[in-house]
Amino acid sequence: MKLPSRIMEDAVTEFSRLPGIGKKTALRLVLHLMQEDASRVGQMAESLQRLKTELRYCKRCFNIAEDDLCSICMGRNRQHQMICVVESLRDLLAIENTQQYQGVYHILGGVISPVEGVGPEQLHITELIDRLPGLESPELILALNPDIEGDTTAFYIHAQIKKAGLDVRITSIARGISFGGELEYTDEITLARSLAARMPYQRNSDS
Amino acid sequence: MKLPSRIMEDAVTEFSRLPGIGKKTALRLVLHLMQEDASRVGQMAESLQRLKTELRYCKRCFNIAEDDLCSICMGRNRQHQMICVVESLRDLLAIENTQQYQGVYHILGGVISPVEGVGPEQLHITELIDRLPGLESPELILALNPDIEGDTTAFYIHAQIKKAGLDVRITSIARGISFGGELEYTDEITLARSLAARMPYQRNSDS
Repeated sequence: MKLPSRIMEDAVTEFSRLPGIGKKTALRLVLHLMQEDASRVGQMAESLQRLKTELRYCKRCFNIAEDDLCSICMGRNRQHQMICVVESLRDLLAIENTQQYQGVYHILGGVISPVEGVGPEQLHITELIDRLPGLESPELILALNPDIEGDTTAFYIHAQIKKAGLDVRITSIARGISFGGELEYTDEITLARSLAARMPYQRNSDS
Repeated sequence: MKLPSRIMEDAVTEFSRLPGIGKKTALRLVLHLMQEDASRVGQMAESLQRLKTELRYCKRCFNIAEDDLCSICMGRNRQHQMICVVESLRDLLAIENTQQYQGVYHILGGVISPVEGVGPEQLHITELIDRLPGLESPELILALNPDIEGDTTAFYIHAQIKKAGLDVRITSIARGISFGGELEYTDEITLARSLAARMPYQRNSDS
């Protein structure tokens, strides 16, 4: 669609570069913004700029941070010897959203995937190993996606810790059928694993 | 969802203020932007700013313009005595997209709607009437949505022209569009045909 102004076209192009936003939606957003106050649009533009200028990665866990360390690594009420290893910021956010976890995190920035050409050296695994010696009886909770890449990465981390001779408790988040999931429609691997990893029965008080 | 940084939260809030974008989508967009180059994000922010700082309304037809007049009003190949009256910029864009129309436009900026508290004085109707005396055998094509507000507005414009004693041919785009249909979402062929098959304006008895 030809637009009456280059400036408008540029804005539509910028928006349509975002994931899941096509030309039509981009145009709708631009038309919306054009009817907004200049101050509101300025605020949005500034807000975008600040994402890149004022945010950085936490030096310890690679979460998003405004200072050298992120708010979680600086948290006083956090159990700093318990480190949950996740693939990405999204996974961290998903776990934080449960409001049940009191430990800290380590974002790997991906998983080992030969197909995608991602090796361990591209991930923050060395930084993870380096965090462990300073901690008192540390625990590593591997919260990686239950697929081949996740399993490979988990195994690699486990091997590296053994190699370094560190005394670390390594656990992995429980794998099984999700709450509300139907046994009938669960895939075989999940079902086989939840049978193998069966737990003593206990009545669940909160369900 | 609690985010690790206020700056990120602000950006998510800004995005979720856009129409059709919820919190989850806003977060996805922000996470995407955070992984983009700073220059790309800067370009997007600048592009948004320019929407408000460099764009204005065409003094003649109220289309979006970078100068006093829009590119259509300044067009040499346009038939300037043929004015297509539309409700909004979106409708102008829809008609331009047919690539069939050679005249110019006049954007009313809305339609008369007592329910929404929009009277004729809030619309660019006076400016439309003022354009006519300077033109040689002008034609007004009323391309308003075929609903009660559109019909009311068309009738009001018709009455104002008669009152001013102007000799103007008034036509209306053909009703290939169903009653209650939206101009913006009509396919190009239907829209192009309704322009070609425009009829002399007459007050619609059934609405």
